[in-house]
Amino acid sequence: MLTYSFSDAGSDSLYQHLYKCIKNDILARNLRAGEKLPSKRSFAKNLGISVITVENAYAQLISEGYLYSVPKKGFFVSDISMLPPEAAFSQNVSIRSLSDAIKRADMTDYTEKAYPADAGETAGLASPFGAAHLPGKIDPAGLVGTGGNLAPLIDLTSNQTDIRNFPFSIWAKLVREILNENQQELVTNPPCGGVLKLRASIARHLKDFRGISVAPEQIIMGAGTEYLYSLLIQLLGFDKTYAVEDPGYQKIARIYEKHKVACRHIPLDESGVCVPALEESGADVLHLSPSHHFPTGLVTPISRRYELLGWAARAEGRYIIEDDYDSEFRMSGNPIPAMQSIDLSEKVIYINTFTKTLASTVRISYMILPRHLADRFYRELSFYSCTVSNFEQYTLARFIENGSFEKHLNRMRSYYHRKRDLLISRIRGSELNPRAVIREENAGLHFILELQTGLSDKEVCEQALQKGLKIAALSGFYLRDTPEIEHRFVVNYSALREEQIDEAIRILCESID
Amino acid sequence: MLTYSFSDAGSDSLYQHLYKCIKNDILARNLRAGEKLPSKRSFAKNLGISVITVENAYAQLISEGYLYSVPKKGFFVSDISMLPPEAAFSQNVSIRSLSDAIKRADMTDYTEKAYPADAGETAGLASPFGAAHLPGKIDPAGLVGTGGNLAPLIDLTSNQTDIRNFPFSIWAKLVREILNENQQELVTNPPCGGVLKLRASIARHLKDFRGISVAPEQIIMGAGTEYLYSLLIQLLGFDKTYAVEDPGYQKIARIYEKHKVACRHIPLDESGVCVPALEESGADVLHLSPSHHFPTGLVTPISRRYELLGWAARAEGRYIIEDDYDSEFRMSGNPIPAMQSIDLSEKVIYINTFTKTLASTVRISYMILPRHLADRFYRELSFYSCTVSNFEQYTLARFIENGSFEKHLNRMRSYYHRKRDLLISRIRGSELNPRAVIREENAGLHFILELQTGLSDKEVCEQALQKGLKIAALSGFYLRDTPEIEHRFVVNYSALREEQIDEAIRILCESID
Repeated sequence: MLTYSFSDAGSDSLYQHLYKCIKNDILARNLRAGEKLPSKRSFAKNLGISVITVENAYAQLISEGYLYSVPKKGFFVSDISMLPPEAAFSQNVSIRSLSDAIKRADMTDYTEKAYPADAGETAGLASPFGAAHLPGKIDPAGLVGTGGNLAPLIDLTSNQTDIRNFPFSIWAKLVREILNENQQELVTNPPCGGVLKLRASIARHLKDFRGISVAPEQIIMGAGTEYLYSLLIQLLGFDKTYAVEDPGYQKIARIYEKHKVACRHIPLDESGVCVPALEESGADVLHLSPSHHFPTGLVTPISRRYELLGWAARAEGRYIIEDDYDSEFRMSGNPIPAMQSIDLSEKVIYINTFTKTLASTVRISYMILPRHLADRFYRELSFYSCTVSNFEQYTLARFIENGSFEKHLNRMRSYYHRKRDLLISRIRGSELNPRAVIREENAGLHFILELQTGLSDKEVCEQALQKGLKIAALSGFYLRDTPEIEHRFVVNYSALREEQIDEAIRILCESID
Repeated sequence: MLTYSFSDAGSDSLYQHLYKCIKNDILARNLRAGEKLPSKRSFAKNLGISVITVENAYAQLISEGYLYSVPKKGFFVSDISMLPPEAAFSQNVSIRSLSDAIKRADMTDYTEKAYPADAGETAGLASPFGAAHLPGKIDPAGLVGTGGNLAPLIDLTSNQTDIRNFPFSIWAKLVREILNENQQELVTNPPCGGVLKLRASIARHLKDFRGISVAPEQIIMGAGTEYLYSLLIQLLGFDKTYAVEDPGYQKIARIYEKHKVACRHIPLDESGVCVPALEESGADVLHLSPSHHFPTGLVTPISRRYELLGWAARAEGRYIIEDDYDSEFRMSGNPIPAMQSIDLSEKVIYINTFTKTLASTVRISYMILPRHLADRFYRELSFYSCTVSNFEQYTLARFIENGSFEKHLNRMRSYYHRKRDLLISRIRGSELNPRAVIREENAGLHFILELQTGLSDKEVCEQALQKGLKIAALSGFYLRDTPEIEHRFVVNYSALREEQIDEAIRILCESID
């Protein structure tokens, strides 16, 4: 059996060390494509470590595409022939302890534990509507907010962040300090890309936590990713053809449509965007979320990432927009290396946002431009004023600098992890369980619930809505060739309150017959 | 001589009453086009009121286009034949006391008074660069802000607001309150148009201070006017032809250009946008600043406003974007009725911003859509998230609601008024005076300085820059057919510090020989 020594683990945790050892063996071809790895239990026993340690290492390797699992058969080495053994990123990956976010790696092994009630739970949001994630949503009055007060409803489509997750006390303290100490900076126009202090903080954070090395001037701040998309169209060209994932986050396709640029919808296979279809589409720019696809939850494996970079490198003017919108909320293992960090050809534009990690109502996002695009941005678009208020830019810079952001992220991960586990264990313990399969639950703030039912997806959603539960079917997110019946539903649990869980499950049970 | 009774002035001030009486006589054709009005002194004596009261009323009537003045000849009634006597707006104008902003109305009658030094003046901004107002400005490094710290320089091109004008203490208090009391609202997604409370506050403010009656849902918040322009292109159409003023605020033309929409440059005459040229251009949408044109300082008189509304009404799909960016800073008389408030055909989109009144680094602007366009906005663009942070929207709403905004505006007006008077009186008392004419100094934060010189505009600007003074020539703002020599320079005094005034004048003197 495969054996590794832990004597040279250095400052790495056992899980990190094991992950690296296996990965290096795969990269060095000591472990070959298709080779079966030891079962978690026997491997743990053999190495003298706990099962959970092996689980975590395997989960990380699966999410990065080095391993794949076959239910009831075990874990196997992926075909990484696209990936050269000396792959740059393997030296770059910054492994940090995310132990609080890593509890279990086996994708279906949820036990019906009793979870302590979340003492902090109070009467929270009154069923906010998640405009962001609901296809075709229209607000004709213009006055009903996404946090409007319609009939009481459990909402599994909302991207609304939870009040208890905003760090009000530390934020208030920092705002007070900034308003006292930084008055001159606050009223001084920042560069078009945003406040330098903030961009430098973000660059440091990305280096420490995401293995991304960039100069602050490559980072461009904007009031939400939607605004940044619009800037990118101006930067890359209205005459370019843009490609989006199908199914996908429909707002992105809509933004391209509203800007009257050509937009192609590229189908996905089990590894993400299909390269042949992409090639055939004639697209110049691919917009995707490789870390965690919405709504399928897919994580694009490393091999496909290289394939996509290869596609971009094959022609001038091709670019990849890597939308890393919720990479901070991976539940198992380390975040996968961003495509940005393994891109040596200046092809990847990385986008991320604080609207997921801080509050959806704090409009601070950023993009990282490859150097030659950053130059073009300053040459052609620097007449634009930065759209984010200085007040929030300076506050956020201090929030990152003094370590509060890291602490906050850890707290958020634990919170969502706990909530996800609670929801899944309640499903497992319910009458829904025999008819439910849970998929892609290891990243982000949603998972896929596959339900056995004789009804169409639309019928299920309508029945649920009538009973007071808002849930979206995966089939609703296809841009073309919509399958009518897939029986896969998107469970966005970020706005779900603990006391709503049993009711939500009961309604789902009633809605599938 | 013209005589009015003040017995029925009601709650109006004397100036307001006199203004209304004369306006009503002009509208009723009791006073005819070309008719000479009494001199200020004799009119005041005859009515038993002070000269300043007559001055204020005349200044208001001039700025609204009802009167015009001929230097050394007196005041005359304008030709308002375009304006029906029952004009809707005449009932609507909300006259409020702006007495602190009204000091003198005669446009050229500046005496060399000694002004008390501004006790609040401290070492303020270190020569910020005004990216906004400088044609062709590029920031290749992306790191030098518009408040960068290049060589010490007096900057007469900057739109940078002054640190002493931001109401830090009240703002800090309100932020504290909001963070304590409104946590739920702060993290709840607002409607796509923005926080309702803020939009309602703005609607009330507009009604009270600008004579504009709108429903809150017609108001759409955005992170800066530039962002709103981009939304408007999406709303009105990429296939439409847009028209901008020439000369004009170059950023606007650039934004249209960057969105790849057709953009025509319309020449101005002494009343603003030339209607025949506009008609000939084939434009669908006219973007203008009738309250205070940048850089000429022109105020579009009421007759031209009606002509432009007539142009818009003549064809479906024609619209007027009324950019009211600094209407709050008129120095004499009441703001002119906005085109929005006299538009009965739903043709005017009104845009205004808090970046001028509060701080250029607070990115809060808004637009008012006519009802049918608001409907279209909610139908087609409501998937966009509002780009302004909730935190600042709620703070600003409270700032307006509790009267702080009104107080702040009054303080700002006095401050800029004092600064303008000081600058002008120093010019009058200097060796520059015999070679200088000051124009259009009654509105906004800049005026035009016409200088007698044998040099070209470019040579003057270059000489000044070498000596440490940054000033822009009006001729630099023409989009086409740029006149090489006009000898008119744009003096933006918002960022000028008192202790820089004499030095600025000295450099100007040296730069014109």
